This record gives sequence, structure tokens and C-alpha cells, in this order.
Amino acid sequence: MPGPRVSFVTLGVADLVRSREFYVAWGWTPAQVSEEIVFFQANGLVIGLFGLADLAVDQGRPDAVLGMGAMTLAQNYPTEAEVDAVFEAALTAGASELKRPEPTDWGGYSGYVADPDGHVWELAMNPFSPPGPDGSVVLGG
Amino acid sequence: MPGPRVSFVTLGVADLVRSREFYVAWGWTPAQVSEEIVFFQANGLVIGLFGLADLAVDQGRPDAVLGMGAMTLAQNYPTEAEVDAVFEAALTAGASELKRPEPTDWGGYSGYVADPDGHVWELAMNPFSPPGPDGSVVLGG
Repeated sequence: MPGPRVSFVTLGVADLVRSREFYVAWGWTPAQVSEEIVFFQANGLVIGLFGLADLAVDQGRPDAVLGMGAMTLAQNYPTEAEVDAVFEAALTAGASELKRPEPTDWGGYSGYVADPDGHVWELAMNPFSPPGPDGSVVLGG
Repeated sequence: MPGPRVSFVTLGVADLVRSREFYVAWGWTPAQVSEEIVFFQANGLVIGLFGLADLAVDQGRPDAVLGMGAMTLAQNYPTEAEVDAVFEAALTAGASELKRPEPTDWGGYSGYVADPDGHVWELAMNPFSPPGPDGSVVLGG
């Protein structure tokens, strides 16, 4: 059986234009845009924005609230200064502040924001697993 | 400003042991296990399992349901047969079936399952963006 992999992360959104504008304002450049979906190329995976109703049909859960329970998507950076800069840029772009970046009990530094649909992004510096230039993390690497 | 990246995907879970056993039964090998967290090394990012209450504290959302709205994590495979095999293995491991793999209107093939906490995984074959051996996807690559 193949091991763990994430090829796409698709965020259901209430308003595709609003969400695209938020991520563009945060500094992201779309790789593909249509009336139905926006794709951003990330580190070996693709982040997509997709209408809530379309996502519900795709998931086969048309009757569900589509709440997935708790989940965090984390963006790791090599320095606290970069975490601070990306955090401030998120707020400027219209993100909601959940937790300002602060030292963590595991020896790192992290803050949390939510995008316009409540998707939670952690912005973190982890000295034990520094990311590659594209944000990739290899444990113990 | 840095571009799109996902360094970690952390799934909040109600029962860490149950969730670890589910993913191990699905064929995944943990890279790190403690009493608080389980990490799996994926394609340039890390998938973590973390207790719901701990995640709520980390996110700075102790009062929230922690529902993140709709989201899909997709695992892409080069063939329909692999999608079918991973789908069946998920059900055998205890996943809930949301949608059996079927041809999609965009020319691919995909199915959906939910893990024990309702986190949604899509298992897909996309002939236009075939994944690398580790599941990585580069648009137009």
C-alpha cells in the first residue's frame, strides 16, 4: 500500500472571487483560474479554492455541514521575522487573527490566522525541522 | 512575500490511539509517535494527528467547534486500479465510504472516504496532472 501523501488541498469557499482576492492580497499568484476553481502551486502539492456547493457534490456529502472537524494547515518559515511578516501580511489581506505569533512550549514560534471561510493557517518557525526554500519539511532532515 | 506552501497538515482527533491504528491499518508507517502526537512523513510535508483539545489550545480557538468548513485532502495516483486499491484498503481499515471511485466529468476518476473523525480524503487519478512517485503534483508538469 502506498504511504502518506497529499497531492491537493481543496478549500471550500463561500465566494470564489473574495477568496481568490484574499490569497492574492496575501502575496500568492494563482497558477490556474477558471469560473469554478483557483489553483495555487505549492511545494509538491496544489492548493485549490472551490465553491462550497461544488465541493459538497464532489465529496458525496450534499447534506452535510461539511465541517471536517479540527485541522490546521501550517506554513513553516526559517525565522521568527518571516513568521511575523507573513502573519502581518495575512491580517492586511483580511485574515482573522486567532493567535499572534509567540514562543511555543516546544521551542518554536507560531501564530494562527483564519482565512475568510475560517480555514486555519498556522505560521511557524520550528528550529528542529527547518523547511526547505519552498516550505517543504522532512522530519529529522 | 513567500508563495503558497503547506509544511504540515494537522488533523485534530478524538482518540489518538484509534486514529493512529486507522492510518497504520491503511498502510501508513509513523515517523514519530509520542503520547501527544503522531507524525507521518509525506511528500515534502508532514501529516500529524493531534488531540482535539490540544489543537484547540494551539489554534487559540478553545471555544470553537473547530469546524474548518469544507476541505478535501486528496491523494493522487497514476491509475484507476491504484485508486480502487487504496479506497478498498481505507474501508478495510475502518474509513467511512462517502463516494465509491467513479469517472469524473473532468476526465479523471475519484472516490471519497472519511477517516474516524470525519476528515475527508479524496483518492483520485487525474490524467492531466499525473503525480510523481511520492504523490507530488506539479500543475502542467
